[in-house]
Amino acid sequence: MELIVLGAAAGGGLPQWNCIGGQSRRAWWREIPTQTQASVAIGSRQSGYVVINASPDLRTQILQTRALQPDAHHPDGPRNTPIRAVIVTNADVDNIAGLLNLREKQSFSLYGPDAVMQIIGQNSIFQVLDPDFVNLQPLEAGTAITPVEGLSVELFHVAGKPPLYLEADLGIESGSSGFTSGVEVQCGARRILVISSCAHIDAALKQRIQGADVLLFDGTVFEDDEMIQQGLGHKTGRRMGHLPITAADGPLIELSETLGTRKLFFHINNTNPIWDIQSSAFQTITDAGWEVSHDGMVIPL
Amino acid sequence: MELIVLGAAAGGGLPQWNCIGGQSRRAWWREIPTQTQASVAIGSRQSGYVVINASPDLRTQILQTRALQPDAHHPDGPRNTPIRAVIVTNADVDNIAGLLNLREKQSFSLYGPDAVMQIIGQNSIFQVLDPDFVNLQPLEAGTAITPVEGLSVELFHVAGKPPLYLEADLGIESGSSGFTSGVEVQCGARRILVISSCAHIDAALKQRIQGADVLLFDGTVFEDDEMIQQGLGHKTGRRMGHLPITAADGPLIELSETLGTRKLFFHINNTNPIWDIQSSAFQTITDAGWEVSHDGMVIPL
Repeated sequence: MELIVLGAAAGGGLPQWNCIGGQSRRAWWREIPTQTQASVAIGSRQSGYVVINASPDLRTQILQTRALQPDAHHPDGPRNTPIRAVIVTNADVDNIAGLLNLREKQSFSLYGPDAVMQIIGQNSIFQVLDPDFVNLQPLEAGTAITPVEGLSVELFHVAGKPPLYLEADLGIESGSSGFTSGVEVQCGARRILVISSCAHIDAALKQRIQGADVLLFDGTVFEDDEMIQQGLGHKTGRRMGHLPITAADGPLIELSETLGTRKLFFHINNTNPIWDIQSSAFQTITDAGWEVSHDGMVIPL
Repeated sequence: MELIVLGAAAGGGLPQWNCIGGQSRRAWWREIPTQTQASVAIGSRQSGYVVINASPDLRTQILQTRALQPDAHHPDGPRNTPIRAVIVTNADVDNIAGLLNLREKQSFSLYGPDAVMQIIGQNSIFQVLDPDFVNLQPLEAGTAITPVEGLSVELFHVAGKPPLYLEADLGIESGSSGFTSGVEVQCGARRILVISSCAHIDAALKQRIQGADVLLFDGTVFEDDEMIQQGLGHKTGRRMGHLPITAADGPLIELSETLGTRKLFFHINNTNPIWDIQSSAFQTITDAGWEVSHDGMVIPL
């Protein structure tokens, strides 16, 4: 079994299509590698894979990931995929738009919080996922499923916000719970946590992280106001539902006492200086025992 | 001014994510180049570009097209794009999903048939295109606009079908007109036609094509039943709203008498043998005076 980082960047990717500031500038000039939007696959060629979040880059990610390519000698014939299931953790475009790439009458299971499944149901464009083939299942937090043989998976609530395109309809406060989830994966004796969006680290979350083997954690912004500082937007990390890495209540300080957990940032914004391995920011997180994930990174489980 | 083929493949691209038959097999093995889903940009760095159809691969296409990258020395600062406008010709996922890549508070104009604009309005996910920045304008067939200085553009009706995800709701017959359009672009003395979907070539369409300088035409399938023959689906080209290249009423025969028009197939399915330049199919269309377009192809205007 393995975990493959299909995409390590936050919404927009690295570079962002309409931005030549921050780390995007370096990425356009190929001084640092480009990165696609956050998504993870866990599984094996034998058992199949579960994909956590369907980013808008999913077709590109499948093309650059040999493990997810169809099998030339599959008993079902030339149309097949090792992707058995997709789990979406919230309804942001970053996490669900990629489902539109998974059309073409291919069977797989789709799981997510009920609030997210409802939004998908309300948008007729997702009917390209033919219900005769795609099994859409609301998944309550705390209910374990086995999307792939050998993996037990459950969702848990994480503080967040509603998707951007529904903020005006639902109110920004609606996101305090229900819209955003983390994913806990049990693979044999190993426990993996994938948390791409987190607005607050509470006692329950700290408790859950204790003793995990691998933690992929929301690394959207290094500092709360970095987008504003860089002239690349007017929102803070917190306004977007993301805890800054270096905040007093952020992951660097709050999760400093984990023991034996391999800790990696992912869902990293194109303004975040940790993309640059020469930066003091990169040094800071490295000294604190964290890694920066990247497209194509494989973690054996 | 130039026309850039951002993507030359039909829906699913080449290869298709869940297919290792037909031409997809060769593309997975990199015996032939991979291709993204159909889209075209027309314009220049000076005047800006209009993009015709927003394919799910649009972020990838911008990354591989230097002309569409933001300007490091733009007076508006580091967030900018040379894309001034997007025109969508129907509401298929292939043509509108890429709009979700164009979020991030960037001004541009979005044009399309009223029926298509309504579907976009009904799907809340497209509200990521902030109305303060994106000017969504229904465009009637026959009304000329100037989305970019130096280009006059109009839509015209083409026989087609409703989008796949609305076939059950609207009925397959609903697509005979209104959902599918072609685009006519006038650039100085040059006239360019982009027709990615065409179910029938009538007298009016033949008339319009006469004397055009460049024609990009629906090359989805070579033979009507090629998907079935290759074991890659149960639908014919006609059932999907596409006239087969070699049909008695198809483009090879019906458009054989154009004079002085550079004729290229695009929107080419991953089952179509013309992707293989060694094939007799490729020879057939070449002998008939047609070219196969490909990702990154540039036609100076």
